Amino acid sequence: MSPAPSKPVDLKQACIDEAFAIIQSKGLEKLSLRDVARRLGVSHQAPYKHFASRDHILAAVVARCYAEFALYMEANVPETDSFESLHAMGLAYLNYAREHPLEYRLMFGSVLPDPELHEEMMQQAQYAFSLLHNKLEKLPLKHAADMATDLEKHDAIFVWSTLHGLATLLQSGVTDTLTLSQAEKAVAIERAMSRISLALDPETRGAP
Amino acid sequence: MSPAPSKPVDLKQACIDEAFAIIQSKGLEKLSLRDVARRLGVSHQAPYKHFASRDHILAAVVARCYAEFALYMEANVPETDSFESLHAMGLAYLNYAREHPLEYRLMFGSVLPDPELHEEMMQQAQYAFSLLHNKLEKLPLKHAADMATDLEKHDAIFVWSTLHGLATLLQSGVTDTLTLSQAEKAVAIERAMSRISLALDPETRGAP
Repeated sequence: MSPAPSKPVDLKQACIDEAFAIIQSKGLEKLSLRDVARRLGVSHQAPYKHFASRDHILAAVVARCYAEFALYMEANVPETDSFESLHAMGLAYLNYAREHPLEYRLMFGSVLPDPELHEEMMQQAQYAFSLLHNKLEKLPLKHAADMATDLEKHDAIFVWSTLHGLATLLQSGVTDTLTLSQAEKAVAIERAMSRISLALDPETRGAP
Repeated sequence: MSPAPSKPVDLKQACIDEAFAIIQSKGLEKLSLRDVARRLGVSHQAPYKHFASRDHILAAVVARCYAEFALYMEANVPETDSFESLHAMGLAYLNYAREHPLEYRLMFGSVLPDPELHEEMMQQAQYAFSLLHNKLEKLPLKHAADMATDLEKHDAIFVWSTLHGLATLLQSGVTDTLTLSQAEKAVAIERAMSRISLALDPETRGAP
């Protein structure tokens, strides 16, 4: 009996895996299609069947990061439409950033390939953003006199900016200059979440 | 008559200037004391009179960035103790980030030398943070039930995180995936500033 045929390798997915591994071990600037081919033991030309350039494979790596990030958020945030659920979304975002620093940096802290030229990457990024946008659309947001239409998109940028700032500042060396303990960082995160609620939630009342 | 003696060169300051120029033209990872000496036309050993290592000169560069950043904020933020003044501080911060991207990245987006070993850098960073901290201390902040003591430090981290998130996200490629126009970015910034006021200012009322 001849051996069962081995599972065909999906060259495209294997290239994306190797590209991520190269970025992880050598840094973003060392990514090349030639090195991807070498590590997979295929011809120099093989990756070009799927990726026209280094930017194309990088865009595919980043697109997969967005897709996995969105799955993580969907798995870890309750679907209920409440400010508690928005709070949980904030904590899930910060946990993701802490647990996946490279993926986080690729998505939100790197020079990305031009989204107009890499539609799959752009669509995955927009889908991830829509999770926050849709959450806010379902909540009754506090208004102030200077707030015009298109509320949720701008408020999504406010919430995202606060979370991104927390994720990057509290993990960078700069907060070491303030000698913040881990416990203080946790309090600062809770404070920021409370401030987001005070900013957005018409039901949140300041203390008397 | 012999010529007037030329102004003595301050080698330490000249080294810091050259170190910044190297980072600007070649990138942070290319900074070396050897290259600083070569560009100044002094002996390999000369910079070591002032800087024990590459980390020491990098810390001096970052310390100067913090000092100049603090001067910029002091020059551009009214001293009045009001939420309008906090708003002006936020806009000044975002302007600084846009006008000085390299300095901004060195202070807030890089792996810094260990602050415990570089006291001057740490003190300049703490002074810059104190400008925001002191501003908040002079304002009557809205309280909520879950907010314990040490209000201003944690609220300073909330405000700073939001500003840092805006500064980095709106200038990075990631918001290109959302195809935000310059006009929309300006609206998003104003919205975030309004949300900060709603979060902090007991006088800010939501619309009826």
